[in-house]
Amino acid sequence: MAVDYQSLAVKGVQALSPYQPGKPIDELARELGLNPAEIVKLASNENPLGPSDKAMAAARKALEEMCLYPDGNGFDLKQALAARFGVAMNQITLGNGSNDTLEVIARCFASEQSEVVFSQYAFAVYPIVTQAIGAKGVSVPAKDWGHDLDAMAEAVTERTRLVFVANPNNPTGTVHTAAAIEAFLDKIPANVIVVLDEAYCEYLVGDEYPDGVALLNRYPNLIVCRTFSKAWGLAALRVGYSISSPAIADILNRVRQPFNVDTVALAAATAVLEDEAYLVKAREVNAAGLRQLAEGFERMALPYIPSFGNFIAVEVGDAAQAIYQALLARGVIVRPVAGYGMPQHLRVSVGLPDENERFLAALAEALTSAGQGA
Amino acid sequence: MAVDYQSLAVKGVQALSPYQPGKPIDELARELGLNPAEIVKLASNENPLGPSDKAMAAARKALEEMCLYPDGNGFDLKQALAARFGVAMNQITLGNGSNDTLEVIARCFASEQSEVVFSQYAFAVYPIVTQAIGAKGVSVPAKDWGHDLDAMAEAVTERTRLVFVANPNNPTGTVHTAAAIEAFLDKIPANVIVVLDEAYCEYLVGDEYPDGVALLNRYPNLIVCRTFSKAWGLAALRVGYSISSPAIADILNRVRQPFNVDTVALAAATAVLEDEAYLVKAREVNAAGLRQLAEGFERMALPYIPSFGNFIAVEVGDAAQAIYQALLARGVIVRPVAGYGMPQHLRVSVGLPDENERFLAALAEALTSAGQGA
Repeated sequence: MAVDYQSLAVKGVQALSPYQPGKPIDELARELGLNPAEIVKLASNENPLGPSDKAMAAARKALEEMCLYPDGNGFDLKQALAARFGVAMNQITLGNGSNDTLEVIARCFASEQSEVVFSQYAFAVYPIVTQAIGAKGVSVPAKDWGHDLDAMAEAVTERTRLVFVANPNNPTGTVHTAAAIEAFLDKIPANVIVVLDEAYCEYLVGDEYPDGVALLNRYPNLIVCRTFSKAWGLAALRVGYSISSPAIADILNRVRQPFNVDTVALAAATAVLEDEAYLVKAREVNAAGLRQLAEGFERMALPYIPSFGNFIAVEVGDAAQAIYQALLARGVIVRPVAGYGMPQHLRVSVGLPDENERFLAALAEALTSAGQGA
Repeated sequence: MAVDYQSLAVKGVQALSPYQPGKPIDELARELGLNPAEIVKLASNENPLGPSDKAMAAARKALEEMCLYPDGNGFDLKQALAARFGVAMNQITLGNGSNDTLEVIARCFASEQSEVVFSQYAFAVYPIVTQAIGAKGVSVPAKDWGHDLDAMAEAVTERTRLVFVANPNNPTGTVHTAAAIEAFLDKIPANVIVVLDEAYCEYLVGDEYPDGVALLNRYPNLIVCRTFSKAWGLAALRVGYSISSPAIADILNRVRQPFNVDTVALAAATAVLEDEAYLVKAREVNAAGLRQLAEGFERMALPYIPSFGNFIAVEVGDAAQAIYQALLARGVIVRPVAGYGMPQHLRVSVGLPDENERFLAALAEALTSAGQGA
């Protein structure tokens, strides 16, 4: 009796394509027979600074507890986050990276009968978690590569349970002002949950940009998601979190796996919050790197989308996939974004100055070999 | 407009009570004003040996990659597991602890229309993941504290999508022989997935017990789940995995979060598989500890369930909750199992000899103070 196990999967899962991560350095090294140290990976919006000393010390110490289960309540980390943001500990839900947090939110509030609204060109995890549930994803056409917030508000129907808003957005790097986000939130019914994904908010400088946490008192339907994977430099350890009303956090914490954040991750995240200098340096290096990359693109007459994250999407044209491959062959990993409906762009993460330079040089070569050079 | 956010949650989640972990040492220390080092925790079936040197070295080295995303494909760990068990890498699905693996399986194959069969007194995560989906959990009455496999097979209906079998079972420690498991599998239709949870299988010694992996060729509907949290001593780091047919693994890997196992966890798990001496010692210490505890219970004339795991359920009677509290006051954390429908038992994990002794002494005192002493 041959059973087609694919056909036994729930409907949403049958149609699901998993997330495509950036190519790992080791994988490329294996494929090309290169030394991993020679490879520049600017594909996953990682912090190029290397670990915070405080995070490293705390992580090494936490390893002593390797045999013991983590604190499932994440007491120390929640206490540190609560103090930093002026919220109560029972407003916080920890996640195994913000991917976990986003997925838990979707599983709590969306079902096969629901609609979930997000923007064209927004983070791939929104449609993926929607599809896994079998809910209907409503992708709202973007405006100037960014969220069209008016159109997103208009896309909300009686069946809408969730709206995902990324600010800044990945992979386009676009951002909305506080005024725009508040005007949007004013239009959303209180029984529709709005997820404001602020994974890149630590890179924003200026009063004109929203602080989602400050909006929670006015919008009880708001969930703010953040991560330690970007500016805080802990991508390897998987720590994200959401801040919401206690009522929503109570629901999320029921579905969250009890030990979803591990002991080393909890310790490192708690410690890095004390390392403000690391964050400041991350911002400075990022701002300089964004300028360096933008100037490089301008020299090559390549259009790019001005970015407020730690990455930048550059338009290289129809040969984008060939250029991606040509960069790989030169030991430089960037991210193709055809899967985001942006087949003419590549997304490059901001690296250290020499990494950015090596990428720009390889790109110039790749463009020439693809017959598109400046 | 006051919205009841609880009522917005999907139906299954509204009725969900989350998993109750063992009380963390730090939490008890805070509550009692004790030094954490004075507390004995025998509540979470952890390996009392302390970290494997090989795992520790690998974990420390992996911390250097703190800023980079993990290898989402877990190449090295899957390669090591595949070599150890003689399976292909595409039969393996990694999980953030086996909790994650169990949840992913449920989400892939069960929906609100499904029934999920498990045993009374089985691991709490089976009903929890079932409830979160809104599927119907079918709890089959146990026989002699263990799974009644005949009754479980009879409980399978046209709506059954999944059957969870824990061997050995937590929290009772009961086990079935290979012959019994095979006879059970022979009765289950090929379109019903059987999850054989072997979280404690490394403690089994003897040819009469099944090796789930060896059964995969005969039963394509079988998924074997295992973990690094118990005998391998990596509970803090969260690594579990399943082995199945490639077709089933393909489905599970779609729903698995792309970075569900972190860099440190991947490195430590890969390394500990090379530390066979650690596993051998874990088995020896556990076997001796089980004898020590059983003898202690016999001296106190307390009935217990003979266990094949790294824990043992002892029957202390109606005062179980009071005795649990009295043990806490003495700095000893065990696990109440009233939530498992075993209100007269406590589950104690096997510790080092002095930890077991300290528990037994505290238990004798607690029994006396509860008026039930031997």
